Amino acid sequence: MSDKINNSDDQRTHEFSKYLRKFEVPHVLNLERGGNLENVEIAYETYGKLNSDKSNCILICHAITGDSHVAKHNEKDLPGWWEIMVGPGKPIDTNKFFVVCSNVLGGCRGTTGPNSKNPKTNNYYGADFPVITIKDMVLLQKILIDSLDIKQLLGVVGGSLGGFQCLEWATQYPEMIKTCLPIASSPRLTTQGLAFDVVARNAIISDPNFNSGDYYDFENKPDIGLALARMLGHITYLSRESMNEKFEIDRNNPRNISTSFEKKFSVGSYLAYQGERFVERFDANSYVTLSTALDLFDLGSEKKQLKENLSKSKCKWMIISFTSDWLYPPYQSFDIVDALLSESKNVSYCNIKSNSGHDAFLLSTDIESYGEITREFFSNAFNFDNKKSKNTKVNTKVKIGLTNRIDFQYISDLIPENSTILDLGCENGELIKNLSITGFSNSLGVEINQSNVIECISSDIQVVHSDLDSILLKFYDNQFDVAVLSQTLQSIKNVEKILKQMTRVAEYSIVSFPNFAFKPMREMFFNEGKAPKIKGWYGYNWYDTPNVRFPSIDDFKEFCDDKNINIEKSLYLDTINNKKIIDDPNLNADSAIFLIS
Amino acid sequence: MSDKINNSDDQRTHEFSKYLRKFEVPHVLNLERGGNLENVEIAYETYGKLNSDKSNCILICHAITGDSHVAKHNEKDLPGWWEIMVGPGKPIDTNKFFVVCSNVLGGCRGTTGPNSKNPKTNNYYGADFPVITIKDMVLLQKILIDSLDIKQLLGVVGGSLGGFQCLEWATQYPEMIKTCLPIASSPRLTTQGLAFDVVARNAIISDPNFNSGDYYDFENKPDIGLALARMLGHITYLSRESMNEKFEIDRNNPRNISTSFEKKFSVGSYLAYQGERFVERFDANSYVTLSTALDLFDLGSEKKQLKENLSKSKCKWMIISFTSDWLYPPYQSFDIVDALLSESKNVSYCNIKSNSGHDAFLLSTDIESYGEITREFFSNAFNFDNKKSKNTKVNTKVKIGLTNRIDFQYISDLIPENSTILDLGCENGELIKNLSITGFSNSLGVEINQSNVIECISSDIQVVHSDLDSILLKFYDNQFDVAVLSQTLQSIKNVEKILKQMTRVAEYSIVSFPNFAFKPMREMFFNEGKAPKIKGWYGYNWYDTPNVRFPSIDDFKEFCDDKNINIEKSLYLDTINNKKIIDDPNLNADSAIFLIS
Repeated sequence: MSDKINNSDDQRTHEFSKYLRKFEVPHVLNLERGGNLENVEIAYETYGKLNSDKSNCILICHAITGDSHVAKHNEKDLPGWWEIMVGPGKPIDTNKFFVVCSNVLGGCRGTTGPNSKNPKTNNYYGADFPVITIKDMVLLQKILIDSLDIKQLLGVVGGSLGGFQCLEWATQYPEMIKTCLPIASSPRLTTQGLAFDVVARNAIISDPNFNSGDYYDFENKPDIGLALARMLGHITYLSRESMNEKFEIDRNNPRNISTSFEKKFSVGSYLAYQGERFVERFDANSYVTLSTALDLFDLGSEKKQLKENLSKSKCKWMIISFTSDWLYPPYQSFDIVDALLSESKNVSYCNIKSNSGHDAFLLSTDIESYGEITREFFSNAFNFDNKKSKNTKVNTKVKIGLTNRIDFQYISDLIPENSTILDLGCENGELIKNLSITGFSNSLGVEINQSNVIECISSDIQVVHSDLDSILLKFYDNQFDVAVLSQTLQSIKNVEKILKQMTRVAEYSIVSFPNFAFKPMREMFFNEGKAPKIKGWYGYNWYDTPNVRFPSIDDFKEFCDDKNINIEKSLYLDTINNKKIIDDPNLNADSAIFLIS
Repeated sequence: MSDKINNSDDQRTHEFSKYLRKFEVPHVLNLERGGNLENVEIAYETYGKLNSDKSNCILICHAITGDSHVAKHNEKDLPGWWEIMVGPGKPIDTNKFFVVCSNVLGGCRGTTGPNSKNPKTNNYYGADFPVITIKDMVLLQKILIDSLDIKQLLGVVGGSLGGFQCLEWATQYPEMIKTCLPIASSPRLTTQGLAFDVVARNAIISDPNFNSGDYYDFENKPDIGLALARMLGHITYLSRESMNEKFEIDRNNPRNISTSFEKKFSVGSYLAYQGERFVERFDANSYVTLSTALDLFDLGSEKKQLKENLSKSKCKWMIISFTSDWLYPPYQSFDIVDALLSESKNVSYCNIKSNSGHDAFLLSTDIESYGEITREFFSNAFNFDNKKSKNTKVNTKVKIGLTNRIDFQYISDLIPENSTILDLGCENGELIKNLSITGFSNSLGVEINQSNVIECISSDIQVVHSDLDSILLKFYDNQFDVAVLSQTLQSIKNVEKILKQMTRVAEYSIVSFPNFAFKPMREMFFNEGKAPKIKGWYGYNWYDTPNVRFPSIDDFKEFCDDKNINIEKSLYLDTINNKKIIDDPNLNADSAIFLIS
C-alpha cells in the first residue's frame, strides 16, 4: 500500500524551497475585520519569464495546506503541489507564461502568520494573530503584484481556498485581471462543509497543548488536535467512490506503521500516517486561521447578493467543478455561473466527470479534461488579438449528426444585427462559429456533453455545461435577444417546458426541426406499417433513435397556436436538394425553421 | 433556534427508565472474537401484551446511541427514541404486538458494557472490556428471547446499527424470525463511513483523560474526545440539504450557549451543544466498543460472499433505505436486495425519497412512507392466514393508464403453471394480484414509483423499488420462468438493452404493447400529416406523451428477427371491442402480446 501513502502531497517537506523569495510590505496592513499587521512579509516563487509588455503573468492561488512551491524549478528541485499543471509545456506553460505563486497571509510557509514574530512584542503572534479574511490574503497578493510592477494579470487560477481567492480578486481588483479560473469553489461553504471545519478546529483548540494558541515556546505542540483535523479534512477531500477504490480491497489490513492513533483498518493506517506527517510541516494556529478565513468567505447565499458582488468583475471567467466533489458541490459553481450570466458577464463552465472528489484538481486522473480547459482558456486569452482569424476556418458544410447543416445560413439570416444569442444544445459550437463569421459576437452556448463543451472552450466559444432544463430556469425574462433550438426539439422530452422557458428568456426564438410528416415518411408508415426511417435526423431504428418526439410542421404550428406562441416567420427546406419549399411544406419539406416570440 | 437544539434525542436523560427490566445470563457468554464475559446482565423494556400462542412479538434493535427506552410506557413517562413509531395505534402498534427492546451488549444503558464491574476483579472493565461484535449482541438478545419462552419472533426491526442486528438475526437464527426489516443499513460500512468512525475513535482515545479506557475512578472523563466524536457523528447523520435548511438562514448567529468549544457559527453552537449534552448520558468506552463492532460487521463486499451469508435466512424481508442517506447509501441496501433475490428469498425494497439523511428513520418528516410500510409489512405478516381472501377483491377490469386491462387475462393464459414471474413496471400490482387469483403465487414486481411500491407492499405483493436497467443487470441467467413487460415497451428508451436483459433473466418473456401502426393511426398520419392520437395508450399529444417509442407489430417482429429472439406465441387484440384479431393484425389490432424466448 505504499502508493496509497506516498502521494505527491507527502513529498513536501518542512524545509522551505531554495527558490523562495520574500517581499516586505513597506507599510502597515489594515485588515478587513479590524486590527492591522506591521512588517508583513510575503513569500513567493516565480516560474518562466515576464514578457516585455508584462502581459503574460498568471497568479496561482493555493489551497489550505499548499504553499508557494507550486512546481519544480528544475529537474533537481523538489516537486511542488501542482506539478502536473505547471511547468514547461504543461497546461500552465512556464515557457509561455510568467507564473507567480505566494504563500497566503496567515500561512506558515514563509508569509507572515501566527508562527511569525510580532514586531511589537518580539514574541510569536500565537493567540494574538488577528482574524484574517480572503480579502486580506488577496490584498497582500495585490501588493506583491504591484511590487513586481505588473499592471494587469493575464489570469488568476486556483482550487478550493485558491478558488475563493480568485473570486475575491475578480471582485476586489476588477481592472487588474483579464481572466479568472476558480476551480472546485463556491460562493460560500455549505453548512456541511462549515461543520466539518468547526469540528476540526474544535479538535485543535481543545488539545491541551494548544494553550489558546501560545505553544511555540513549549516542547509539546497541539499535534494530536492538528492530526485529527487533517484526518477529517482528508475524508472530505476524497469521494466515497475513490475511498472505496483505494481501501476496500484490503480493508482489514492496515499498514504496519508506528502511530499513537488507531490502526485497525487499512484506511485507518492511511489517515494516521497522513495526520502525523502533516504536523511535521504545518502549524496548528495557521490551520485555525486559514480555515476560519474559508468559513467567513461569503459572496452571498442568495442570487441577488451573489449578483451584486460579482457585478463588479470585468474579467472573462472559466468555472470548473467536479461531479464527485461533495465538499464544494457542483451546484455551487453553477450558482456562480448563473449569477455571472445574469450580470451579462463572459463566463464558461464545465462540470468535469470525475470520481476523485474535491481533490480532483490536484490529481492526474482527470487532468486531460481540466488541464486541457486551463491550457486553452489561458492560451486563448493570451492570443486574443490573433484569435478572430482562427475562427474563419469554420466549415459551414460540416456534417453534424447525419446531415449537412445548410440550415445554419438560414438561421443566421433570421437574426437581427447585434443580437445576443443563446444556442441551446450547441454541440461543438459550429452554429456559433458560423454566427461569429457573420458578425454576431455575443453568443452563449449550452451543451450537456463534456467533450463538446471542451471543444467549444478550445474554440473560444462561451459555453455552459448544463442540461436545458436547469439552465433555462436560471435566466431572467428577455435576457437574450434570440434563443436558438436547432435540430434539438425532437430529442427533448419536455417540449412544452423548454419552449415556454425559451420564449420567456429571449425576445425571439428560433426552432428548427426535421418534419416527421415529410411525404416519404408518411408513405412508408401508411403502406408498410413500420416506423418510418429516412436518411437524416430520422435515420434511426424505432428502438434506438435518440429522438423521442416526432413533430410535423402542422403539429408545431398547432402547438404554437394552442400555447399562444406567435410565429413571426417560418421557412421550410428540402435539405437534400438544398432548396426552400413553398408548396404544402408539411408534405414536401424535410425540415422547418420557425422564428417565434 | 431552540427547536433546533431540543430534539427528542436531547430529552433523553442520564436516568434509566423506571420500566427497565434486567435479565442475568445464567452462564458464561463466549464471544465471537475470543474471550468471554461472566454474569452478563441485559437491560430491556417491553410494551403491549404477548398473545397466547406467543406469535406477536416484535424485537426492536437500537442504533449506536439508543437504548431500551424506545417509547413512553404511559402518558407520564419520558419519551423514548422511537416515539413516532412505537405505541398504541402507531406503525408498530403496541395494542397488537408485544414489543421488546433491549440495550445492546457493550452499551452503557443497563446492559453489561465497559462501564460495568468485572466480576473477576470487582473493578470496572474499562480497558479490559473485550472486542465484541454484532453477532455477540444478537446472541445476547437471543438468550433474552429464549428466557421469555418465545420460540419465534414475528419480526425484527431496526435502523443503522439496529439494521445490522436485524441482518445478523436473520442469518444466525433463521428459524427464530418470521420477518426482518433492516432500515438504513448495509452489508458493511463504506470506507468513508469507516473512516469517520476511525477519526471519532481517535478523538476519544487520544483524549488525555481517556487513560487507555481506565478513567472511571477519576474525576475527569474523556468528555472532549467523546463530544468531538458526537459532533462528527451528527454531521454524518444529516444530509447536506437538511443542514442547509436548518442553519443557512442564520449561519453567523450562534446560540448564546456556554461551551468550551467554538461557537462562531449557528451550526457550531448546535454541534457544541449536542456534543456536551451527549457526554452526560453516554460512556466513551461504550462508544469505542460499539463503533468498533459497527466497523467489524461484514456480510461481504462481493455479491458471492453476501449471497452465501444471506442464503441461510428463512424470513420474509422488507428493506428500507433513504435517498439522501450518504452514510449508509441506498445502493448498499440494494446490494442486500440483489443478493437475497439471487438466493430466491422473499424480499421487498423501498428507497424512500427523503431530505433527512441517515437520521430519516428517527424523524417524523418521512414517517408517512416508512411508517406505513412498517405497519403494513408487520400487519400482513401477522394476518398471514387471513390474507389470501383479501386478494380476491381485485378488479380485473380496473382502469390503468387509459384503457381496460383485458390483456391481463390473455397474459395469464400464456404463463405455464407454477412459474416464477417477474413483472417489470408492475405499477400498483394489479397484474400480480390477478395472477395470484389465477393461482400464481411466486411473482416479483419491479416499480419505479414510490407510491405504487407502497401500495404493492400494502397488498402484500413482493416488490422492488428500482428502475428496470439497474435491477435487470443484477439477476442471473434464467432466474425467472417468465418476465412480463406489460404496456411498458413504448415508454422505455433503451428497448434493445431491456429486451436483451429480459430474455436473459427469464426463460420466457411476455411483451405487450399498443400497436402504433393500427389503421386509424396510419390514416390520421397519412391524411392529416399530424402525430396520430387515439383513445388509449396513444391518446397523448406529441409534445407531452409519456411514450418515447412507437413500435408497430411488424417493427417488433422484425426486431425479434434481427436480434435472434424467438417468438413463441403472439396474440393480437382489438381492446376496444375486446376481441382477438387474426386478419392483418399490424393494420387491425390496437394491441399485441408476444411470448418470446
